Amino acid sequence: MKPIEMELEKSLENCESSKVLEAMNYSLLAGGKRLRPLLLFETCKAYGVDTNIANPFACALEMIHTYSLIHDDLPAMDNDVLRRGRNTCHVEFDEATAILAGDALNTEAFYVMSQAICRDDQKIKCIEILANCAGVNGMILGQALDIESENKQISWNELERLHRNKTGKLFAAAFMMASVLADDKVHLPFWQEIGEKLGLAFQIQDDILDITKTSEELGKSNSDVENHKSTSVTLLGIEEANKILAKHFDEVVGMIESLEINSTDLIQLLMSIRTRQM
Amino acid sequence: MKPIEMELEKSLENCESSKVLEAMNYSLLAGGKRLRPLLLFETCKAYGVDTNIANPFACALEMIHTYSLIHDDLPAMDNDVLRRGRNTCHVEFDEATAILAGDALNTEAFYVMSQAICRDDQKIKCIEILANCAGVNGMILGQALDIESENKQISWNELERLHRNKTGKLFAAAFMMASVLADDKVHLPFWQEIGEKLGLAFQIQDDILDITKTSEELGKSNSDVENHKSTSVTLLGIEEANKILAKHFDEVVGMIESLEINSTDLIQLLMSIRTRQM
Repeated sequence: MKPIEMELEKSLENCESSKVLEAMNYSLLAGGKRLRPLLLFETCKAYGVDTNIANPFACALEMIHTYSLIHDDLPAMDNDVLRRGRNTCHVEFDEATAILAGDALNTEAFYVMSQAICRDDQKIKCIEILANCAGVNGMILGQALDIESENKQISWNELERLHRNKTGKLFAAAFMMASVLADDKVHLPFWQEIGEKLGLAFQIQDDILDITKTSEELGKSNSDVENHKSTSVTLLGIEEANKILAKHFDEVVGMIESLEINSTDLIQLLMSIRTRQM
Repeated sequence: MKPIEMELEKSLENCESSKVLEAMNYSLLAGGKRLRPLLLFETCKAYGVDTNIANPFACALEMIHTYSLIHDDLPAMDNDVLRRGRNTCHVEFDEATAILAGDALNTEAFYVMSQAICRDDQKIKCIEILANCAGVNGMILGQALDIESENKQISWNELERLHRNKTGKLFAAAFMMASVLADDKVHLPFWQEIGEKLGLAFQIQDDILDITKTSEELGKSNSDVENHKSTSVTLLGIEEANKILAKHFDEVVGMIESLEINSTDLIQLLMSIRTRQM
């Protein structure tokens, strides 16, 4: 079992039992790529920061990501029934429980950060960063733009802004929290740009995979077509989308290589994302 | 305008505009009793703590309370259409926007606390307290118990546990954060009990008001009867409910008077709650 899986399992161990807690664990421990924790861990390693220090922040990232998936899948949002190869939370439990499980994971993310073992000023900065990246100036702004874009033609610029917020901001938070734990505040804006760029590239990849793979291969349903959403493929065509994807990935790698950190493993992680098939 | 109203207005001023932000402001600035901020301010005053220091924590409390109301009103939860005399958030906007607005207020609560001007160790302790009181061991546990109690006979003990968590824990957070800001950690468990007791009393009052006042007088719909929920009145009868209400209020006042703080105004606030008609 990966270390992050053990940390996630432990993270809700001391909570009072309820149906909502069951639903939280159901969604949080459903596997998944654990990309955001991995980005945080590898960036910490590149800086020479002990990854044990990063554990609560990795859990917090995955909790925020998981809550956003639970709420995103709700009937009033994307109305998806399949996620990571199994029932979405509201299908397995019920809508009310899924709403509360998402809410509780959002809150719990901040609780686990308050329990970290680093310095208080580092904790506060990480809490500030994650709250900002996950909130109405970040991930939720992206979700809001996503909903507003349904049944509507949007421009490539608008789609880029959507992806930079919806996906990029949590990637950015992973990089930025590692930078804080390494006491490197100077590069926070630099890491933010890397994170947003990677998020954009990741979503272009998703759009391409969505039309080249089946739901079964991906382990999730593809609601974008049903919800009449613009994607990078419908807006740019698959060839141009692939070109822009390559450009952004190359820029991310170039930016990281320009830093004086030991980024070999981090770059390798990025390469595995670059070549992912699901 | 009350100081807390000004603080709440300012709290979302620097956010990027979106429909979700509109919905956040719509619900956050809808008036209401602002009880949790008032409890925090008066407890700070009783301890001699500058109330300016308390502002971000007061905003955070009200953000958490507001998000819980938005989600509680959703069709999948209590399905209420009227709140504080106007449309609930999902009626005024739409369900998806209401879900996101609630999510964003939950997240923003932790952002505003990270920006407070007190010491870092006090911020961290307040974040820990609010996350714990609002999460799956606190307010959300109460919500979960509330949902599970629909269409079902529950015992008075179960209803007490429900109210102590759903309402009491946020009251407790108000008292406990004031105690942290006053550097009085010794009395945290004492304040927690006061908060839970007050929450229980408050909910018994609500149950009594619900059957003695109209929706119009209360400014909100009464969904408890429609959702076949047990209330303190249906379980105990109105006479016994009134007796237990009086007992808990008296105990709260007695506990506060036993502390060596200047609690005159705090007690007066409690008296105004004791005699409320809505």
